[in-house]
Amino acid sequence: MGENKKYQVKFLPSGKSIKVSPGYKLHQAILDCGLTIDTSCGGVGTCGRCRVRVLKGSANTRKTKFISEKDKKNGFVLACLVKINDDMEVEIPAQKEKKAKIADGKDYVAANKSELINVEVSPWIIKENLIVEKPSLSLGTSDHYRLSKSITEKTAIKDPDIPIHFIRRLPHDLRKKDWNITVIMDKKNGVLIDLHSGHLGKKIYGIALDIGTTSLVMYLVDLLSGEIIDIRSGYNPQIKYGEDIINRIVYSNKRGGLSQLRGVLIDTLNKMIVEILKGIDINARDIVSIMIAGNPTMMHLFYGVPPKYIREDPYVTVANKFSDSTAREVGIKHLSNARVYSLRGIASYLGGDITSGVLASGMHKSEKLSLFIDLGTNGELVVGNSDWMMGCSCSAGPAFEGGGVKCGIRAADGAIEKISVDQDSYSCNIDIIGDCKPEGICGSGLIDLIGEMYLKGVINRKGKFNQDIGNKYLKCVDKVCRYILVPATESATGKDIYISEVDIDNLIRTKSAIYAGIRTLLEEVDLGTFDLEKVYIAGGLGKNLNIRNAIMIGMIPDIDIKKYNFLGNTSVKGAYQTLMSDNKYNESIKLSEHITYIELSVSMKFMDRYVAGLFLPYTDMKDFPTVEEYIYK
Amino acid sequence: MGENKKYQVKFLPSGKSIKVSPGYKLHQAILDCGLTIDTSCGGVGTCGRCRVRVLKGSANTRKTKFISEKDKKNGFVLACLVKINDDMEVEIPAQKEKKAKIADGKDYVAANKSELINVEVSPWIIKENLIVEKPSLSLGTSDHYRLSKSITEKTAIKDPDIPIHFIRRLPHDLRKKDWNITVIMDKKNGVLIDLHSGHLGKKIYGIALDIGTTSLVMYLVDLLSGEIIDIRSGYNPQIKYGEDIINRIVYSNKRGGLSQLRGVLIDTLNKMIVEILKGIDINARDIVSIMIAGNPTMMHLFYGVPPKYIREDPYVTVANKFSDSTAREVGIKHLSNARVYSLRGIASYLGGDITSGVLASGMHKSEKLSLFIDLGTNGELVVGNSDWMMGCSCSAGPAFEGGGVKCGIRAADGAIEKISVDQDSYSCNIDIIGDCKPEGICGSGLIDLIGEMYLKGVINRKGKFNQDIGNKYLKCVDKVCRYILVPATESATGKDIYISEVDIDNLIRTKSAIYAGIRTLLEEVDLGTFDLEKVYIAGGLGKNLNIRNAIMIGMIPDIDIKKYNFLGNTSVKGAYQTLMSDNKYNESIKLSEHITYIELSVSMKFMDRYVAGLFLPYTDMKDFPTVEEYIYK
Repeated sequence: MGENKKYQVKFLPSGKSIKVSPGYKLHQAILDCGLTIDTSCGGVGTCGRCRVRVLKGSANTRKTKFISEKDKKNGFVLACLVKINDDMEVEIPAQKEKKAKIADGKDYVAANKSELINVEVSPWIIKENLIVEKPSLSLGTSDHYRLSKSITEKTAIKDPDIPIHFIRRLPHDLRKKDWNITVIMDKKNGVLIDLHSGHLGKKIYGIALDIGTTSLVMYLVDLLSGEIIDIRSGYNPQIKYGEDIINRIVYSNKRGGLSQLRGVLIDTLNKMIVEILKGIDINARDIVSIMIAGNPTMMHLFYGVPPKYIREDPYVTVANKFSDSTAREVGIKHLSNARVYSLRGIASYLGGDITSGVLASGMHKSEKLSLFIDLGTNGELVVGNSDWMMGCSCSAGPAFEGGGVKCGIRAADGAIEKISVDQDSYSCNIDIIGDCKPEGICGSGLIDLIGEMYLKGVINRKGKFNQDIGNKYLKCVDKVCRYILVPATESATGKDIYISEVDIDNLIRTKSAIYAGIRTLLEEVDLGTFDLEKVYIAGGLGKNLNIRNAIMIGMIPDIDIKKYNFLGNTSVKGAYQTLMSDNKYNESIKLSEHITYIELSVSMKFMDRYVAGLFLPYTDMKDFPTVEEYIYK
Repeated sequence: MGENKKYQVKFLPSGKSIKVSPGYKLHQAILDCGLTIDTSCGGVGTCGRCRVRVLKGSANTRKTKFISEKDKKNGFVLACLVKINDDMEVEIPAQKEKKAKIADGKDYVAANKSELINVEVSPWIIKENLIVEKPSLSLGTSDHYRLSKSITEKTAIKDPDIPIHFIRRLPHDLRKKDWNITVIMDKKNGVLIDLHSGHLGKKIYGIALDIGTTSLVMYLVDLLSGEIIDIRSGYNPQIKYGEDIINRIVYSNKRGGLSQLRGVLIDTLNKMIVEILKGIDINARDIVSIMIAGNPTMMHLFYGVPPKYIREDPYVTVANKFSDSTAREVGIKHLSNARVYSLRGIASYLGGDITSGVLASGMHKSEKLSLFIDLGTNGELVVGNSDWMMGCSCSAGPAFEGGGVKCGIRAADGAIEKISVDQDSYSCNIDIIGDCKPEGICGSGLIDLIGEMYLKGVINRKGKFNQDIGNKYLKCVDKVCRYILVPATESATGKDIYISEVDIDNLIRTKSAIYAGIRTLLEEVDLGTFDLEKVYIAGGLGKNLNIRNAIMIGMIPDIDIKKYNFLGNTSVKGAYQTLMSDNKYNESIKLSEHITYIELSVSMKFMDRYVAGLFLPYTDMKDFPTVEEYIYK
């Protein structure tokens, strides 16, 4: 074999093929071809989702629990476990592309109009119609001088920065419509961002954007009125390279990984912009600003900055703030004039999305002791009031977004979002998103399920099945038990939808991390959960979360449920507020500097609380008095 | 003939050819091929320098005094008068490329060391070796934050702007040499312009650049010591598109003209930079700033801004100041990091070169009434002191740079730079630049010549030849007389070097415009030439100018010649001073705002003085008492 031996791998049904060096990983080859494959675990063989079928050639792989002996004989392998050492032909099963269940579009806007447009209107970008003084022999002043003077008179921006490409057009643009011109100015940086001959009105638009680990949400906003014209959302396409932050960082360290992650994200954002502008009579030149909120890793990936050190002791970001830039500079097409801003982050695992969320909650302006919980792919917490704030991130993991739970899926069509267990029969009553057969269980469903199973005695405090209650939905093989929610005959997948003790274990660890975080933060200032006066819940789980069940499983404090408020996606809401208002943005900077970050990964106190939380609802029942009363009534 | 008929024109000896539409001008086709042709008048048939020979094809042209009947029969034409209407083969005579007589290189530096390095050293760009604080769990701060902190501590630059491309490399660069790094900062804009791992010393360099209508001068400077490492100069390559400002503006209005003018200038600057760096052990990354001075038209052309309106009533520039930019943005190669600044102009015909010159003269700090004269292709004047200043431009024309005078050439090898006329024989004694046969007369020679001819009676006060003095060097044909300085047998061209009454007329008009400007400026504040306490002479003529002769012809005030000071090229000197010192640059901005501009082209007073100046030395001899005394002694 020559030194430069390459193998040819062809993929079906697409017909795409690639030549790779011996030992190259198959899942990587699939991604390199621009094909979709779910490698939620980042390609390390632990999620079992990158199943493909080898049609030709021999596959150098290792044993995995995700491929049965029978499937193995039929050529099925996990792509991430195959090192290519032969010319191959590989079939990639159709990957399910689902629409995230994030309220989209005009209906949502209409329903939430009152809530959404209650914002300050003083955006950084303004559009003004000016009449520039004509030149004369007695004035003898340059076009640049007279334009600057008009701008200053109208906008109070002193010594405006007029980039050279506008200077080059300036004499023509000014004279074309007899010294009537329209300028678009960035007040924050005092810079001219667009120039039109004639008077074109003042309408301008902006985009508020949340870049979540799992989802992307985009508002198109009228910057003069605050009106939200439309909303678009979609999955973060980086998911196929790793479901959670850690897997993304691992992938970004691979050769070309960072630019791949950045590339797919930017591509998707460009598509969303095209989509949101379809059929709307808005000139892309009038979309003048983009405000972005995202966690630190997402912001690093968006700006193409290596996030490597976020996951290496001592866990630092490269930057928590990024310079203002232009859409062109960051790769966003169609909007040549738009300025790109982002909300400032606080620490390595507490980003601009949390700054945005706290801003949207308003807790930083209240004297009441408040807790802000963002339940996304990670769980982030901020506790405090107008005097002080502390925040942390509990690496809760993606269990509530469908990760690490065999039948867990993200909140999308086919997801079981609500569950109750019948006390007598132990059968499950389920609510499904969309008009279709159930396919799996999403976060709110999983919390319901754990809570209900515990309450109805299906599982004990340790999360183990009670095998002696005559639960006919419990099926055990070789001491491995599954509690069947939906039998194979009724599911969309043709397989049982169930939960196992391994799944329950994962969920208990996740809820424990969140609660341990809350307690640790409060104890830093000698307070306890019962001192809380307000709790704001933000993030993916949103309004579907059953608070009682979340308390039941010991995930959130056992306080009066009236103190709980659902805020939905606060990341995009804060981005929207700061897009609309310079004051709000300045407020966001102040509050980001105001939050003291606590690194939980090295806190012994946190570890203690975490271990104590590996019971339902908690080791010490005094923390959950209403649960104790209810269970042992 | 088809609608898209094209003609093929081939040029010899280069062999290059081009296809053009019918009616396309021949000189333009030559320039389009990248070939050199002297079209000093801008291609309007008035300078007679674009002589070429048609070898094949018929030339559609018109009669011109520049081509004799005999030459016409041999195929000679002026390229600018030919509209192409046939396939042609055209021979372009070798164009003389001469080295401008501007003191170049290390010898000049050595000779002028003491004068040149007496500058303030506080450049905007600084290079610092930093040790950035290492990250720790307890700090939890981003790389960006700790770098910013180090920069602020060392440089007092608050909240430094660190562009995204540095952020992308930051984690690697900081860790590579254990948190030892070297930064190059632009203090003016608070922006990081380069970043190296490790400690690399503090050496940095800059370039001071004068973009003159005729010449380019470049200093390479050590920004830590002020030492001038080397000097380069050359012709402004735009000369081939027009010798003076007006012809350049005319050319820039043609399709593609502006980018052609800009292109050849930038190309030449790039070559000069390569040239000046040859054999010097300087890392191009350490050349960090470029300071440019030039007249308004040159600055417009450099930045690619249309200068069209400078020559249209009411004569306004597009801009008198240009935003700071990077070498990359303006097209200067090799110096990726360098910041590009320019000196601020005052008015349409009074540019950053004059701001620079006044700064270099120091007149703005003196209580003495001073006059600054820049004698370049245009004549610019500033009069005043530390309390007030007024400036103007007298469109003197390029007569003293060889334009509009048949045997006039620029100060280069072969130019006659000094002349005296023998009172008895009327023969001329000449000094020639370089070790070669004479070829023509440069500015200082022409002033000498007019002065000597007037003094010795060869011409009268109106500039007409005295035909009755027995001057055997005066040759008249059909009442058209030429005064022969050098006979054809002794000249480099094989033709007589002479001066005619038309030439003298042009020179008298030029000197008259300058003196009229001086008087008009002074009269604006009720002063006269005898009130002047200092006169600074800057520009091309420089130290070769014979002051006595310049007074003799009535070009400059008849005051004690001890009050005159030669400053040489003050445009590049001021650029050098402002390159070296932030204070000096700020001083230059203040003084540019401090100079009141007087537009002479609409001043009746100026026109009166101008007409009065069409005599030698002046209509009213009271203005020139020493000349009167000398002549009529």
